[in-house]
Amino acid sequence: LTSRLPHFGTTIFTVMSALAAETGAVNLGQGFPDFDCDPELVNAVTRAMQAGHNQYPPMPGVPALRQAMAAKMLALYGLACDPNTEITVTAGATQAILTAILAVVHPGDEVIVLEPCYDSYVPNIELAGGVAVRVPLTPGSFRPDFGAIAAAITPRTRAIIVNSPHNPSGQVWTEADMLQLQELLAPTDVLLISDEVYEHMVFDGQQHQSAARFPGLAARAFIISSFGKTYHVTGWKVGTVVAPAAMTAEFRKVHQFNVFTVNTPMQHALAAYMANPAPYLELSAFYQRKRDLFREGLAGTRFTLLPGQGTYFQCVGIGDLAVPERDLPEGDFCQWLTREIGVAAIPLSAFYGNGFDQKVVRFCFAKKDDTLREALQRLARL
Amino acid sequence: LTSRLPHFGTTIFTVMSALAAETGAVNLGQGFPDFDCDPELVNAVTRAMQAGHNQYPPMPGVPALRQAMAAKMLALYGLACDPNTEITVTAGATQAILTAILAVVHPGDEVIVLEPCYDSYVPNIELAGGVAVRVPLTPGSFRPDFGAIAAAITPRTRAIIVNSPHNPSGQVWTEADMLQLQELLAPTDVLLISDEVYEHMVFDGQQHQSAARFPGLAARAFIISSFGKTYHVTGWKVGTVVAPAAMTAEFRKVHQFNVFTVNTPMQHALAAYMANPAPYLELSAFYQRKRDLFREGLAGTRFTLLPGQGTYFQCVGIGDLAVPERDLPEGDFCQWLTREIGVAAIPLSAFYGNGFDQKVVRFCFAKKDDTLREALQRLARL
Ligand SMILES: CSCCC(=O)C(=O)O
Ligand SMILES: CSCCC(=O)C(=O)O
Repeated sequence: LTSRLPHFGTTIFTVMSALAAETGAVNLGQGFPDFDCDPELVNAVTRAMQAGHNQYPPMPGVPALRQAMAAKMLALYGLACDPNTEITVTAGATQAILTAILAVVHPGDEVIVLEPCYDSYVPNIELAGGVAVRVPLTPGSFRPDFGAIAAAITPRTRAIIVNSPHNPSGQVWTEADMLQLQELLAPTDVLLISDEVYEHMVFDGQQHQSAARFPGLAARAFIISSFGKTYHVTGWKVGTVVAPAAMTAEFRKVHQFNVFTVNTPMQHALAAYMANPAPYLELSAFYQRKRDLFREGLAGTRFTLLPGQGTYFQCVGIGDLAVPERDLPEGDFCQWLTREIGVAAIPLSAFYGNGFDQKVVRFCFAKKDDTLREALQRLARL
Repeated sequence: LTSRLPHFGTTIFTVMSALAAETGAVNLGQGFPDFDCDPELVNAVTRAMQAGHNQYPPMPGVPALRQAMAAKMLALYGLACDPNTEITVTAGATQAILTAILAVVHPGDEVIVLEPCYDSYVPNIELAGGVAVRVPLTPGSFRPDFGAIAAAITPRTRAIIVNSPHNPSGQVWTEADMLQLQELLAPTDVLLISDEVYEHMVFDGQQHQSAARFPGLAARAFIISSFGKTYHVTGWKVGTVVAPAAMTAEFRKVHQFNVFTVNTPMQHALAAYMANPAPYLELSAFYQRKRDLFREGLAGTRFTLLPGQGTYFQCVGIGDLAVPERDLPEGDFCQWLTREIGVAAIPLSAFYGNGFDQKVVRFCFAKKDDTLREALQRLARL
């Protein structure tokens, strides 16, 4: 059996979560909370099931959920979009990204990805027959390098994938960054795949600069959101894609032949729950407190704290640790850290095509304070 | 924006369900029940959510569900399969089929489909860069034509998709059919994608001949099942794929970069619910009664009843109706039937690449008896 993805194994998130489970380590690897969602949301699912919402929903998603999403896009980002023709509910953000790529990338088309990046992007492009063009973010700062991006655009560039707030670095694109992107793309046909799943985790008084705020970007963008990340239900697998009608039409053509539709009772529950904006408006403050707790704990250790104003991830340098394992490749270091110190982390090298090793690992701080304190205690030994 | 699927529009199931909703017609089009699932299953989801099963499950699926599925494959079909390496939980059967195709079909590979067939197969193949080779089932009987299948196999044939019980015809492959398929494929490397979502809807004393029963087929097959179809929860979007370890490894590589994982609380609920085999063991009798009710009702009309021993679909000829609309193309007839007679159906032409029109439409009888009686009353006028 010849592999369609010969250069890819099991995703690092699965590998590290399995190892954490096996070893009983505190799992700060894969990005998901270890606390539960609002019980009101659980009750809303039960109500939806009991009301008989257990059969196929409309293919693009439950109308009430698309309407709630349209209202939110307008209120938060000033984008007027039509829930009937410009919003589609997906089985999570990963499915949304693959589907968008399959919908617009033709064999031989180039797609720009900014490295380090989430590990599904490049195999998604390859499954579509496209060519991933890897452009590095500025080493150290993880800021966009517009010179390098401009140099990577060719007549065959079909799309660019941007992810802000950025996994794994936590870096957040500024308004100036987005304006520069808009200007750069203006004379081109390049589409934007804007992975905004951490949109409600932006710290230090910054604002999330959604592509939706920039008309020249919104007109060419698939804007991808995740209820799993926002409402602490990563296992429910519900997200959305907002895109102009022509792009949405192509998206839905593929979507209907991929998952066809998305879990009905969860959609009804999320639609009802969205009536209250407080949960997502308060999320940045909620996670900023956790980030600060975690950073303060690490400040007294030999880990080097990297900057980050968004996501629920904290990157740290390991080069100054007092243990010889600091010199291991990042992946081996994370295995050792999980097995011997009892804390799982993700090596940054997993976000690079060439396994670039900069002695940095990523921790997820979407955890109970007690979990973070337990991890900090273990990490303090190093 | 150049389409990746220029020859495909919105799936017929979505079009007809939308029209049925808009016109208030009795919807015998899209295949889903209009009655609810067992309340015990709903309670099991609530319990799972309340127990905190709301975050990412393991990528291949919740272990208890894979174990329950392995036990079922052994008990029903005599196939011993390893839940760790040979079973993957999917977001429904449609996602399973696309994922299997993306995992094994390389650009230029040929995949044989037997027409008429479910409308996702061919676009799935095209998205993978493959070439769909359409082999007709025997006209009228919808039985496999092994001469035609054998003639279609070339050195570039990567897979064949078989669907028994068959949507739309309701035809069921016999043991002799499966043995013939096994013999035909034995000297080849052709993989089998076996869409068995109607496995528990087989009538008149027949047995479902799963590919799992035939070692020479099971060794090369993705066997696809659907909890949605079996447990009356089409909107929950949970299915499974059983395949040998090497095929499962390639399947999971793509799966993890498509949906990544599948709804956690639904998986826990289904695992618990599977402890009792009665629901699926009794399903054929449940639907045979509905089929008989529906056929008996139609027997007094001018619709021609086609044979069918499986699925929850009944195909009927319209050529002898007493109305001039019988001469319309099937698609137009279904539009008229929905709007003017108040019963939605699916034209068989939608299951053919060339829109072949044989004056046959498909009704779904997975409906309350009262719904079926209401539809029969309306259809009796024709
Ligand atoms: C879908 S993988 C787990 C979550 C995530 O996005 C991450 O850990 O980077
Ligand atoms: C996923 S489309 C609806 C169900 C179905 O399989 C059919 O109607 O043929």
